[in-house]
Amino acid sequence: MKLNQRGLLIVISGPSGVGKGTVRKALFEFDEHDFVYSISMTTRPPREGEVDGVDYYFVSKDEFERRIEAGAFLEYAEFVGHYYGTPKDKIDAYLDEGKEVVLEIEVEGALQVREKMPDAVFLFIAPPSREALYNRLLTRGSEDPTTVVNRMDKAEREFLLAHKYDYIIVNDDVHNAADKIIAVVRAEHAKTERSIQSYRSMLEVDDSYGK
Amino acid sequence: MKLNQRGLLIVISGPSGVGKGTVRKALFEFDEHDFVYSISMTTRPPREGEVDGVDYYFVSKDEFERRIEAGAFLEYAEFVGHYYGTPKDKIDAYLDEGKEVVLEIEVEGALQVREKMPDAVFLFIAPPSREALYNRLLTRGSEDPTTVVNRMDKAEREFLLAHKYDYIIVNDDVHNAADKIIAVVRAEHAKTERSIQSYRSMLEVDDSYGK
Repeated sequence: MKLNQRGLLIVISGPSGVGKGTVRKALFEFDEHDFVYSISMTTRPPREGEVDGVDYYFVSKDEFERRIEAGAFLEYAEFVGHYYGTPKDKIDAYLDEGKEVVLEIEVEGALQVREKMPDAVFLFIAPPSREALYNRLLTRGSEDPTTVVNRMDKAEREFLLAHKYDYIIVNDDVHNAADKIIAVVRAEHAKTERSIQSYRSMLEVDDSYGK
Repeated sequence: MKLNQRGLLIVISGPSGVGKGTVRKALFEFDEHDFVYSISMTTRPPREGEVDGVDYYFVSKDEFERRIEAGAFLEYAEFVGHYYGTPKDKIDAYLDEGKEVVLEIEVEGALQVREKMPDAVFLFIAPPSREALYNRLLTRGSEDPTTVVNRMDKAEREFLLAHKYDYIIVNDDVHNAADKIIAVVRAEHAKTERSIQSYRSMLEVDDSYGK
């Protein structure tokens, strides 16, 4: 029995190249949970195999800036020349329906969400070692050398921000990492601050006691 | 990969009759975790099937009071005429070895442990309804009617203390409840405050930053 019926906002973040996307996709293979992916919007060009409306909403810089003006983003950030943002619409509706809403965002953006959505669960995906991350960035091959060096610099700064997250998940193996996130989701639902109200209705104990 | 190597002190508590013992036993059926049960000491007589040194250490009232004097308990409480306590020895050694130490204690005792061991994880086992708990107390049959009424009164007071715990686990089904506790254990190990130090050594990032 799950006391807390409201969905969780799960923020998957971490250094560039750590494998946030693969971990996030692996999460959706667990059938017993009702996950919804909140698709980000970006002005960077699609990588090979990426599909508009599935991996990202790919838009022009003008379009993105128009939406910033309109207050349409929960967070957005610019890096290595491109915008990345999380459209605000639908998130609250999904949470009310009891769906777990998954955001996959850059570190800078995640820290903006922290202020706006204090109830969200913040997961820092860490590489098992610095070398593992660097190798990934070097072999990804979809970017030019300058971009790779920029991403390494960015990763170095991001490594220092892990302490601002609720949990640190080492991505030594995608399935392990996803499995650990599932454990976090289950534990978070059982947390007293999320479940005490339903508990009190269930046992009809005085709602005002001990507040 | 598990960043936090130290074991967790897991306090399983909740109203009398909620099935703490059965949930605790079910936990030990999960092979992938290194649980150790910290056996409580009591002056109440063994129920049918209970074994000294397995379910409890059964001692005399004199012996128990001698140990209170000697400071041998992490917590102890007296109720319906009997003492119940948690012997202190071994707990820290087990935690250092990375074992998860499970305590199964009454609500009053759990709140004493909270002050002494702030790093422990406090789980309130709740019945799915008040009726479920009352039926359990009525059909347990090992106690006289006065004791049953005393336990009901005690349960009513204990229902009000759930908000003092970290997690509320509904014991609608023993296996579900144990499974949820396993999720809590995994999540707690991934919590930033428990894993940030190992994370920093792993990535060799400056230990003093952002403290």
